[in-house]
Amino acid sequence: MKIAIAGYGALGRAAEKEAAKFDDTELVGVFTRREPALVKRQADTNLLSFSKISGYENKVDVVLNCMGSANDLPVTTPYLSKYFNVVDSFDNHASFPEYKKRIEHYTAQSKKLVLIGCGWDPGIYSLFRAFCAAVFPGHQAYTFWGEGVSRGHTNAIKNIEGVVDAVQYTVPIENAVQSVRQGDSPVLSDCDRHRRICFVVTEAGANTQRIENEIVNMEGYFKGYDTQVNFIDYESFLLEHKTEKHAGDAIVSFKDNTLDFCGELLLKMSSNPSFTARIMLSYAKAVYELSKSGKSGCLTVFDIPLSCLFESG
Amino acid sequence: MKIAIAGYGALGRAAEKEAAKFDDTELVGVFTRREPALVKRQADTNLLSFSKISGYENKVDVVLNCMGSANDLPVTTPYLSKYFNVVDSFDNHASFPEYKKRIEHYTAQSKKLVLIGCGWDPGIYSLFRAFCAAVFPGHQAYTFWGEGVSRGHTNAIKNIEGVVDAVQYTVPIENAVQSVRQGDSPVLSDCDRHRRICFVVTEAGANTQRIENEIVNMEGYFKGYDTQVNFIDYESFLLEHKTEKHAGDAIVSFKDNTLDFCGELLLKMSSNPSFTARIMLSYAKAVYELSKSGKSGCLTVFDIPLSCLFESG
Repeated sequence: MKIAIAGYGALGRAAEKEAAKFDDTELVGVFTRREPALVKRQADTNLLSFSKISGYENKVDVVLNCMGSANDLPVTTPYLSKYFNVVDSFDNHASFPEYKKRIEHYTAQSKKLVLIGCGWDPGIYSLFRAFCAAVFPGHQAYTFWGEGVSRGHTNAIKNIEGVVDAVQYTVPIENAVQSVRQGDSPVLSDCDRHRRICFVVTEAGANTQRIENEIVNMEGYFKGYDTQVNFIDYESFLLEHKTEKHAGDAIVSFKDNTLDFCGELLLKMSSNPSFTARIMLSYAKAVYELSKSGKSGCLTVFDIPLSCLFESG
Repeated sequence: MKIAIAGYGALGRAAEKEAAKFDDTELVGVFTRREPALVKRQADTNLLSFSKISGYENKVDVVLNCMGSANDLPVTTPYLSKYFNVVDSFDNHASFPEYKKRIEHYTAQSKKLVLIGCGWDPGIYSLFRAFCAAVFPGHQAYTFWGEGVSRGHTNAIKNIEGVVDAVQYTVPIENAVQSVRQGDSPVLSDCDRHRRICFVVTEAGANTQRIENEIVNMEGYFKGYDTQVNFIDYESFLLEHKTEKHAGDAIVSFKDNTLDFCGELLLKMSSNPSFTARIMLSYAKAVYELSKSGKSGCLTVFDIPLSCLFESG
């Protein structure tokens, strides 16, 4: 299988490294929207301009679209689906139907196959939650994230005036985890399930009180959460907080008239991009096999039987 | 969806109860090989002779075959596949290919769809192990069973002369679990992963030393394991050991050049038959939907995309 990577950020770089672990996968090139000559390399892969990617239509079986989910994928995955089978890790749950529709507009013509939302959440945890919904009518699975780095929250802090660097750890609230585990079926918002711990490096003389206020009151990111802000020096930051670790815990637990049950899918990883890239690489094989058998359109992991992950292996 | 249950042991009885929890599922009848009039009932379901089941060919969408995996399913699932879509929980991993072939011999003619090995292991844990094999080439998942009741081992003890009743708990060895969890990738046999704890009620005056020797030296069941045999009185046994609880823990953990990872799927249940029955009922829907769309033959859970579990819901 010949693959290409679109986007050369954390996920694209991880995919470049991880591709070497998959025997039957050949990496044709990495496509970046920056000027390739100016980009810092980590391997001797072909690094090419994204503007040239359509010329590789017949040289690539599947493109892993590793660009940012919020702003880039909504534009680039529909574009790529005119020419390629694509796998991406689009993660905006609310926008899935509209996004799928726009991709299908192109795949109807191109006859290509596109898999969206492929990662650990959405992705693996979606499968777990869907399985629970099917097997345990009336009971739901809870998902806790962390302890680990949230890139979105980290970037939100970095955008504040006076901030030099920052990291935000999402941490599950242990009492909430225990309550779910013992079958209480509590009503829990995102804020009830997670705390947010921030480490921030500021410019010399910055107003830390103002920065802390901006963080804890930020709508859509921190407001409503138990948020802790720690200001530290840059040296400590580089030593202790240059990490891509993440974790998750999905739990279903209940007691009804015939069954007391607890099921839990726990994941811990040192590198969120590396794990996501491995999942995308595995599913790329499935997309390739299904495409060869004549399938086209836009799928999610729900539509792909696990047997497809082995067929070219 | 109209279903029937074949076999009225622990699993068949659980399926009868659980079917009521699935809104779009109607239980047409339970078919037993015993004389229906002599069988102890738990509900007012139609209880019919298994010898009459072929007459229901056009009245049932899917049969859950809930008979014993070792001796009954190899005969009855191929037979049923002449007339019905079938779901069973066949669990002899080594015999899968041969079993599948025999079923496909009949489904080629009948155009029915049969799902085998549908439960939590094989079944859910098979999906977890296969996912790990695909996403982490070169790394394997380990499965630990227990603490819980092994029906096979329990029956093996009950067959010993002088034994009135018994139960066998399979217990994971905590050091082995820890070693796997921390990424040691140890080489572990079944005996290295599990202990066996037995509670036995004997006839008055029975030779307990002989019974204990027969248990701990039993080939294929206890020999090679750390086995503990406890003799107790019948009253205590009925009070403390009339349980169908079980549990499992599948773990993949490794450190390589780009990723430290630990993933764990933990399941704990008060009733093994109830959980297995719910899984079979969910997948019966998928079998029904796939059958309606023209699919026939013999499948395992690997072949069924999770999206099929919702389509009739």
